[in-house]
Amino acid sequence: MHVARTVADFRAAHAALTGTLGLVPTMGYLHEGHRSLMRRARAECDAVAVSIFVNPTQFGPNDDFDRYPRDEEHDLAICREEGVSLVLMPPVEEIYPEGATTTVSVGPLSTTLEGAARPGHFDGVTTVVSKLFAIVQPERAYFGQKDAQQLMVIRRMSRDLLLPLEVVGCPTVREPDGLALSSRNVYLSPEERAQALSLSRGLRRAEAAWADGVRDAEALRALVREEIEAQPLARIDYVSLAEQGSLAECAGPATRDALLSLAVRFGKTRLIDNVLLAV
Amino acid sequence: MHVARTVADFRAAHAALTGTLGLVPTMGYLHEGHRSLMRRARAECDAVAVSIFVNPTQFGPNDDFDRYPRDEEHDLAICREEGVSLVLMPPVEEIYPEGATTTVSVGPLSTTLEGAARPGHFDGVTTVVSKLFAIVQPERAYFGQKDAQQLMVIRRMSRDLLLPLEVVGCPTVREPDGLALSSRNVYLSPEERAQALSLSRGLRRAEAAWADGVRDAEALRALVREEIEAQPLARIDYVSLAEQGSLAECAGPATRDALLSLAVRFGKTRLIDNVLLAV
Repeated sequence: MHVARTVADFRAAHAALTGTLGLVPTMGYLHEGHRSLMRRARAECDAVAVSIFVNPTQFGPNDDFDRYPRDEEHDLAICREEGVSLVLMPPVEEIYPEGATTTVSVGPLSTTLEGAARPGHFDGVTTVVSKLFAIVQPERAYFGQKDAQQLMVIRRMSRDLLLPLEVVGCPTVREPDGLALSSRNVYLSPEERAQALSLSRGLRRAEAAWADGVRDAEALRALVREEIEAQPLARIDYVSLAEQGSLAECAGPATRDALLSLAVRFGKTRLIDNVLLAV
Repeated sequence: MHVARTVADFRAAHAALTGTLGLVPTMGYLHEGHRSLMRRARAECDAVAVSIFVNPTQFGPNDDFDRYPRDEEHDLAICREEGVSLVLMPPVEEIYPEGATTTVSVGPLSTTLEGAARPGHFDGVTTVVSKLFAIVQPERAYFGQKDAQQLMVIRRMSRDLLLPLEVVGCPTVREPDGLALSSRNVYLSPEERAQALSLSRGLRRAEAAWADGVRDAEALRALVREEIEAQPLARIDYVSLAEQGSLAECAGPATRDALLSLAVRFGKTRLIDNVLLAV
């Protein structure tokens, strides 16, 4: 496994490989969710590259960039275990050269939900991902369904910019009790963690109602809200039922494939989760 | 020579080539300036691709998109003569798929001079060029120094986004009497064309003064203005002396490499020209 800390070094190592390359872009602090992306990439590509880069431009001034968890040694051990060939682990100035001003933006899709809660977040994401794609030049890139809007935004960017790669979305990996894996889960106190189970529980309730034919958007959102609002430490940022594709919020009965998503705070920790609902 | 009208067809034809590829992006109506780019590309690359695409998003509502000159047959003949291997000549919907919303922007460098006169122009340029780069995946891309700010903007974009290619700037090609070649020159009446020679004449006067040690920015701009203002049909949009790199307008004596550039209207026809002044 080659660990590159510069663009030039990564490109040199890549040039020595043959066959297709799958990229798993991450911010490190790798967990079972990331492992599932690496395994999918290994199954579908001749070699796998993992990027580990905590991207400053996707964090707002009140976000947790400085305290975002990092563990380089552990991350590299996981990459080794998963048979990764190339790791790109650059310092910030390698990705944002002095005087860099260029941004990539997908527009409206990036300003709702997570984009509304975190202004500029998705422009940071699309800008850094376009750079990672330019460095790594993968045939396929793997993202978790956990960050559902991010996946949609990156698919849109890749399609619009005619990038020569396939964006692959992979199922959310959960703890046995239902909590979606996230690097931010380490921040949770035992009480918060217990109450955070209301997120997946609420989503499952709505999913079951959907399966039973409930389509009223407000009724579905209310099922999720009820579950979470019963937790004293939870503060809801949003619970959204939106059309897939446009992410326009549903009013009245949902008639198309929808994304049911939410963001909830426990103290300083902000968790997101979602389920896709197909008509 | 293969003429591709779709992204997929271009990629298939490209896959059959070996060695390095040089791209000459154009809006068609090819002239000697474009030929010089193709020759440079042929000299430096194993094969040459030319894109011919009049990009709607870089034209403003009052610009000349509809009347921009087009001559497909003549363009293809020139490409053949210059030994071009691949021509990409797509319809608009191939480059801007339905619902495409993604833009690439270099920020401040794109809002001065041409960007101030034509709001949104350079975002249109960087967006389409990033798409052309994604389709063609050239090792080198060739642009004329005639569009000096465009060249700087594209260099900035390519550097910032870590694109795996070299942006090559090529000297402005001029008529024997000094007029910089431009597809828009065909719009000029004989009187306008005669008076348009004041552009290059003014730039040469300032260049000579610079060589004699004149550094005062206003004095240099005034030399150019005088020459052009003596022409009754000319209406100056701007005459600028700006620092290369930032394009910050020079005040007082110029102490660094500078770009002396101008835009002048003759009736509905807008011409630009420039010279680089090195300290």
